[in-house]
Amino acid sequence: MGKTDWKAEAKALKKEIKALSGAKKVQKPASNKAKLVSPLAPARFPTLPQIRGVEFAAVEAGVRYQNRKDVMLVRLAPGTAIAGVFTRSTTRSACVRDCQAKITARVPRGAGAAIVVNSGNSNAFTGAKGDASVAAITGGVAAALGLPASRVFSSSTGVIGEPLPHDRILAAVPALHAGLQQDAIGMAAEAIMTTDTFPKGASAMIAGEGGVIHIAGIAKGSGMIAPDMATMLVYIFTDAKISTATLQKILSRNTDATFNSITVDSDTSTSDTLLLAATGQSDAAPVAGPTLKAFEAALAGVMLNLAHQVIRDGEGATKFVEVNVTGAATDTDAHKVALGIANSPLVKTAIAGQDPNWGRIVAAIGKSGAAADRDRITIKFGDILVARKGWRNPKYREEDGANYMLQSDIVISVDMGLGRGKRKVWTCDLTNRYVEINADYRS
Amino acid sequence: MGKTDWKAEAKALKKEIKALSGAKKVQKPASNKAKLVSPLAPARFPTLPQIRGVEFAAVEAGVRYQNRKDVMLVRLAPGTAIAGVFTRSTTRSACVRDCQAKITARVPRGAGAAIVVNSGNSNAFTGAKGDASVAAITGGVAAALGLPASRVFSSSTGVIGEPLPHDRILAAVPALHAGLQQDAIGMAAEAIMTTDTFPKGASAMIAGEGGVIHIAGIAKGSGMIAPDMATMLVYIFTDAKISTATLQKILSRNTDATFNSITVDSDTSTSDTLLLAATGQSDAAPVAGPTLKAFEAALAGVMLNLAHQVIRDGEGATKFVEVNVTGAATDTDAHKVALGIANSPLVKTAIAGQDPNWGRIVAAIGKSGAAADRDRITIKFGDILVARKGWRNPKYREEDGANYMLQSDIVISVDMGLGRGKRKVWTCDLTNRYVEINADYRS
Repeated sequence: MGKTDWKAEAKALKKEIKALSGAKKVQKPASNKAKLVSPLAPARFPTLPQIRGVEFAAVEAGVRYQNRKDVMLVRLAPGTAIAGVFTRSTTRSACVRDCQAKITARVPRGAGAAIVVNSGNSNAFTGAKGDASVAAITGGVAAALGLPASRVFSSSTGVIGEPLPHDRILAAVPALHAGLQQDAIGMAAEAIMTTDTFPKGASAMIAGEGGVIHIAGIAKGSGMIAPDMATMLVYIFTDAKISTATLQKILSRNTDATFNSITVDSDTSTSDTLLLAATGQSDAAPVAGPTLKAFEAALAGVMLNLAHQVIRDGEGATKFVEVNVTGAATDTDAHKVALGIANSPLVKTAIAGQDPNWGRIVAAIGKSGAAADRDRITIKFGDILVARKGWRNPKYREEDGANYMLQSDIVISVDMGLGRGKRKVWTCDLTNRYVEINADYRS
Repeated sequence: MGKTDWKAEAKALKKEIKALSGAKKVQKPASNKAKLVSPLAPARFPTLPQIRGVEFAAVEAGVRYQNRKDVMLVRLAPGTAIAGVFTRSTTRSACVRDCQAKITARVPRGAGAAIVVNSGNSNAFTGAKGDASVAAITGGVAAALGLPASRVFSSSTGVIGEPLPHDRILAAVPALHAGLQQDAIGMAAEAIMTTDTFPKGASAMIAGEGGVIHIAGIAKGSGMIAPDMATMLVYIFTDAKISTATLQKILSRNTDATFNSITVDSDTSTSDTLLLAATGQSDAAPVAGPTLKAFEAALAGVMLNLAHQVIRDGEGATKFVEVNVTGAATDTDAHKVALGIANSPLVKTAIAGQDPNWGRIVAAIGKSGAAADRDRITIKFGDILVARKGWRNPKYREEDGANYMLQSDIVISVDMGLGRGKRKVWTCDLTNRYVEINADYRS
């Protein structure tokens, strides 16, 4: 594939558009497509604390794209504990399977560790060749950094079913190694973006016994224009002193209410990966007792923050929607109802149209599979009581609902009136832009 | 922020050109929203046989819309057996609940029966008032036609959560009664349309013992612009002599492979209703033995034909898609995989974009919850072998896939390589038009 001068091409294409537009003036707001930053994006990338024992690097390896950094490396100091959670897809990628095996094996943390991530190709559904690519990449990084391969974790994101040109990644390892630096987490956040419209980061600090404990995380997800899946990759680092077992336990039990409670389009990625690394280099004593509680709460906060940012960068999103279900027979039922609403194309298109179409919420509750009694259901938009006891609130005025829908952040509350089950889920609206992004032919 | 991604920019510009070029030929449907007929519509409404013992009428009652027929009545002769299947939504409408109770009660068929259907309001989530409306309508029709109310079935379709102005329907009953005629099934098919883009009908005839047995059915579904739900209503009539129990048995066991195997957007209606009435007025002997087999096959054919027409009128549809799953561990698993693919927004938008993006099919298989072994999966587009044994077919050429995707009827075949479980599901693509239709503010 020869190098194309894309800048020149873009210029030529702009001319062509001018000509076409002249021929027929079309008001379609298309010009801001490529550069579009989600209207729900935060004002700026946050300042993240440096985490002792963690270094970052990113380079252009040309895996699929040209002229952009597409591979990043994280080096973790000896003694780092690592925990992870992964997609439950049965067609998950070769690197996800490899990470899972390594997490499960609980290799002693004495040695250092590394994480290597590429964009442009997900190395999923690539058979035995995909497994060989993972072995080559993790082996190459291990050799360069003097680590056991069992402590090198990898992620790949991008097109599915095409062979991963792992030689290009291997060729980039010396440059990655040479470029490692401690204050480059922001660069790493940008490097793992594929077509995300903004880099995603979040952090927290807590007072430990004898020192401060820091947490910093980055994520990519959901804004994909050219290739394939809304994939989510998340890497969180901390200097806390903590056992691998405890780290895995608190990571796992906080995943349900954070990353497992967001949905853009109900499609599950083959690549979803969340890794949490604790270097133990904080001045604070090992986390335990009340510090452990505070640490878990801070970690959960960082996870929720990153999860929300993924939704705020959801493909084509113009609304950030919280679905808050209470009063269900069980938590499981509450989750079913919340996901039923959050994944309903009819609810999501109504929100895109700023239509307070609560009848579609009723229908989504009905199809969710959860226990429901029509005559006990209460529905609210924000603080506006829309329906109660199976019937429209007589005081509800459609214009109040319509006004509420103009906001960019929407809260839909449903009380099932049956029990104590509850659950929150976050999603975005379903817009023409989503269809455009995903109907676009792969280049 | 940083460097311009000229390649991405060029890509976006190309798309803009495509849109602009398209805009010249395909006038953007802004003003012609209500008039569009699905590109997948059959050439014409079929000629349906008259069924002895069945009469139809339709009038304008002004339930919600003006200047269109919005209520229809069917009168069924004494001796008619009636079977039904209904939505499984827990928030299903008052009339669905009423129909279910009447079907379950198995009122003796000696008396005649009637079906009354309105559009514009679904009478769902309308509490006790909704129940009262159903009682008023079925009671009014029963009084006018001299039937027990327990033999009057009703359906309502349209907006959810608003009180049904049943007095308008009651006021129309005399005109409906006066207008009943035997050769008006086509008029009835049009009368039950809400924003469907074409009326849907199908029929079959079989040779019974001593005479011909006729089946004729009509359906509405999926093309809804202004109001709310993609609702499906289906009414099938036959002159066969058959017991209510047998009628219900064969209706129920053929629903899974027909109406339960179609999906436009995974949203379940609160109103789905399928009624099957057998007047027994054919000259043929009661169906039994081989005639029963032939009758069931003919009925299944009519059901599948109507189900396919609903998909061909799917909101915004430009492609009719069959998903054919074989080799799954069980039929249940095959159904999960087929629905996982058919409901995947990423698969459906790719089809809309005529993109042979089979990686998204892999992802949909992975998320379906069915047992899967990556290295045994085979994927085909029509007869084109795309992937086998967990890897892209080396002979597969992307342009073959792309050419295939230009067709309006697409078959996606997946063999799981695990067992004998199989299932077919039908769906349509997910287009901008779907979002436009459903984001449109309710009028």
